[in-house]
Amino acid sequence: MQDLIEAIVHKYKSLCPTTPLPEFQVFFNDQASNDFNSLFNALPAERQYFVVGVPGSFHNQLFPESSLHFVYTCYALQWLSTLPEELSDKNSPICNKGRVHYTNAPHEVLNAYSTQFATDVENFLNARAKELVPGGMMVMILSGIPTGMPYSKIPSGILFDFISSILMNMATEGLIKEDEVDSFNIPFYAASPEEMTGLVERNGYFSIERMELTNPATWLGSGPIDIQAWVMHVRAAMEGIFTEHFSRSEIIDQMFKQMTEKLSDCSEDLKSRSQEKVQLFVVLKRK
Amino acid sequence: MQDLIEAIVHKYKSLCPTTPLPEFQVFFNDQASNDFNSLFNALPAERQYFVVGVPGSFHNQLFPESSLHFVYTCYALQWLSTLPEELSDKNSPICNKGRVHYTNAPHEVLNAYSTQFATDVENFLNARAKELVPGGMMVMILSGIPTGMPYSKIPSGILFDFISSILMNMATEGLIKEDEVDSFNIPFYAASPEEMTGLVERNGYFSIERMELTNPATWLGSGPIDIQAWVMHVRAAMEGIFTEHFSRSEIIDQMFKQMTEKLSDCSEDLKSRSQEKVQLFVVLKRK
Repeated sequence: MQDLIEAIVHKYKSLCPTTPLPEFQVFFNDQASNDFNSLFNALPAERQYFVVGVPGSFHNQLFPESSLHFVYTCYALQWLSTLPEELSDKNSPICNKGRVHYTNAPHEVLNAYSTQFATDVENFLNARAKELVPGGMMVMILSGIPTGMPYSKIPSGILFDFISSILMNMATEGLIKEDEVDSFNIPFYAASPEEMTGLVERNGYFSIERMELTNPATWLGSGPIDIQAWVMHVRAAMEGIFTEHFSRSEIIDQMFKQMTEKLSDCSEDLKSRSQEKVQLFVVLKRK
Repeated sequence: MQDLIEAIVHKYKSLCPTTPLPEFQVFFNDQASNDFNSLFNALPAERQYFVVGVPGSFHNQLFPESSLHFVYTCYALQWLSTLPEELSDKNSPICNKGRVHYTNAPHEVLNAYSTQFATDVENFLNARAKELVPGGMMVMILSGIPTGMPYSKIPSGILFDFISSILMNMATEGLIKEDEVDSFNIPFYAASPEEMTGLVERNGYFSIERMELTNPATWLGSGPIDIQAWVMHVRAAMEGIFTEHFSRSEIIDQMFKQMTEKLSDCSEDLKSRSQEKVQLFVVLKRK
């Protein structure tokens, strides 16, 4: 984040070497229930911008018309705002029984996810189109996947599959009810560049300056994967979703423990798959 | 707050009846450590403005130059950013021994308070002068006092005097140390309209549209004062300051209990003094 701001400042100075840098604000958006104080206290004390916190869902308009010059979103858009109830309804033909994600699920389940993703992106783009000035830029970094690649082939697909099987085993052992697994789906969707291109073009408010898949796994380093660290990372991002559905903390502790074991058993396989380009990097310009 | 926003919207519509109301943001400023989530969650769900939280001290610049049209501050400016250490130093000639405020203190103590108030207001006005557009308006509501009236004559003066005597009694009883009382001063200052006028004129960036003392006690109603409610109000505003200095909660509970008793004993006197105009209402316009 700090790097990004410095890059923008650097660009401004190179384009306008004789004018002083104008004062500017950085608006940090998050859900109203998330902890803004931790955010504010984590920011560097010495900074060249004014800080503002903006509560609310980014699927809605959050700023007045034409009031932003640059928007940045990183690893947020792959989280769906909701999922169709049919996925959790055991009487529905698209009930995602025994699974917690569309990984290894019938095509109809994937479709339900991708339809919701399309709605979310459309709402997001409409809101940002209102807020950005003409010519304003937007950088989006989110989970992605090469067109046509099954989700089960990438590390997070392996992870989601493990979660399904761990929870189903718990149901067999009577620790949780099978209904609890059937009614639980992780609202996480990875789009291909072609799919995202289609959504941006259909929306019509932005031109595409860049759209590419990159490799997010540089943090894994060149040695063996640190499975403990990876699970901690996953837990930080996902624990809330599990807690909301499976209220007992011992179930969740147990699940992350078993997840660590299962992932450790296939760390070689994970390592080779971690070379896949599963990070979607998008730069858009408001027309 | 909601009333104020509605009044501004109403004024806009009456001045510009044919143009639609522009989208606008309301920025809520507080110290970075205060709870922004409670604030965000307390706001009405249906609102005609975008909400933003701004962390930091309002004695510094918080917004880019010429980016605000209207500033409102209510019951905040009377809290001083700091107090001279000499007031708490028993070797200093201006040590405020046996008291927690300038009520009934020598003139030098009052001077130390008023000097700090002048510095704080100067910093506040300088910061707002940068942020407000020319012609931008600022409404300030804060504790005030008629010129020349001793602080001991108004209800909060009686309160501060009681706090001093309760704490000194506790020191006599050995519950706290006398040094703890001597080194404790409540950073609360009430300015007269003449004093505030002088500060605004010396600053020079604003014209004074209104400057008057009003009566804040309409909430007390026409019957006897509800002392319990008043102490709860005082405690909500001041408990943090006491907790920082006297870390034991039983001391603080005890102090507020005794305060309630003492105030109850003089509620008639308080009632008659509550008619004093001790609320300073200021409207400024950025030149």
